[in-house]
Amino acid sequence: MTTLQKHAKQTAPGRRERRRVETREKIFRAAMRLFAEHGFFETTTEEITEAADVGQGTFFNYFPTKQHVLTVLSEKQIEKVVAARHEAEAGNASIQDVLHRLIHRIAEEPGRSQALTRSLMAAFISNDEVRELVRGNMARGRETLAAMMVLGQKHGEIRRDRKPVELAMTFQRSVLGTLLLWAMQPQGDLHAWLEDTFRDFWAAAEARVQVAGNREPGAAEVKNGTGNGTRGKKL
Amino acid sequence: MTTLQKHAKQTAPGRRERRRVETREKIFRAAMRLFAEHGFFETTTEEITEAADVGQGTFFNYFPTKQHVLTVLSEKQIEKVVAARHEAEAGNASIQDVLHRLIHRIAEEPGRSQALTRSLMAAFISNDEVRELVRGNMARGRETLAAMMVLGQKHGEIRRDRKPVELAMTFQRSVLGTLLLWAMQPQGDLHAWLEDTFRDFWAAAEARVQVAGNREPGAAEVKNGTGNGTRGKKL
Repeated sequence: MTTLQKHAKQTAPGRRERRRVETREKIFRAAMRLFAEHGFFETTTEEITEAADVGQGTFFNYFPTKQHVLTVLSEKQIEKVVAARHEAEAGNASIQDVLHRLIHRIAEEPGRSQALTRSLMAAFISNDEVRELVRGNMARGRETLAAMMVLGQKHGEIRRDRKPVELAMTFQRSVLGTLLLWAMQPQGDLHAWLEDTFRDFWAAAEARVQVAGNREPGAAEVKNGTGNGTRGKKL
Repeated sequence: MTTLQKHAKQTAPGRRERRRVETREKIFRAAMRLFAEHGFFETTTEEITEAADVGQGTFFNYFPTKQHVLTVLSEKQIEKVVAARHEAEAGNASIQDVLHRLIHRIAEEPGRSQALTRSLMAAFISNDEVRELVRGNMARGRETLAAMMVLGQKHGEIRRDRKPVELAMTFQRSVLGTLLLWAMQPQGDLHAWLEDTFRDFWAAAEARVQVAGNREPGAAEVKNGTGNGTRGKKL
């Protein structure tokens, strides 16, 4: 066996795996583009495979149904939450900054268009199987968020009189409510909407100064306007 | 003309109007029941008119399409917000209590079942005309909520470093996010979920004690657990 042959043998499984990931991603991208343009229900798997330049059989190797393409989006969001947790654990940034960046990263896909977000929401609301998958992913997302809240409580950044899992729910509720309200509008920049959302989330989550001098160690000072006013505001 | 005839003439228009309202309500109730049982898209207007015991023609006198039945729900929610505003203006209760009652009143219809809420959301997300109507009603709702926030700011209950219309948006975003998250679950008491939602909303909206003795007149004291823990908690 030559060195070249050995090398080929070693890298082949990695290449196959990489190729699988690439094909899955290609189908996902094509589907998202079509969902945004024509709506989820109006797009057929034929149109997706044509746009992705793969055979119908290939499509079904990756996704049992069109609905399952949506679960990729949900997985991608989870990956972002996990990455944020690693950032938080590395300890180079405040939890406030990590969560603030996360809220904008989560908005990248849905922020492409209101029509896409509406289309995705309608699909995962009305399909039982997809909803179960998304619900599972959201529960995993909450666990990861809760771990970040624990860190924030340890650092004295986040209030300790709330359960971490409740604060994780607060975060998800705020993001979903924003997506739904924003997706109903004919226009608007999702990131600007999320600035207000994050500011409110943080106002509910941040450690408070205790009255009568009974200040929590490391508690953030209460100040006027807790927002990170770096992006444009809506209204 | 006899007294009886005069009386009949005076009350007839009122009675006709009352009857119109009753018929509209009857159709609405029957439709909601069927949407909850079978889903919005699966329910036909024939099934609604049969359940409501009215003719097909009568249905279309009240609603141009099945989708328009949903706008009644949206109108009912607005009426609840307007009633809350009157309560707030009467001044017999704190704005916190008025908004707390309101959040539970708004949940009465959707709280009947997750399937109903999913069905309603899917319908108003995917139908352009209904979405426009609901969006208009929600904008009116925000104006009314903002008027309550102004009152709360005047009384020193609500923080003054937020625009009233932004706080109104916070309220709607919280409620919609809760509805969406709750409607994805197989079970759960919406009112219990809303207790946490209100607690977080209030934590973001309430007037804060200022540090360094620079206390806002009438500002609420910061205490551990600002919730109104009268209802059961989820989790």
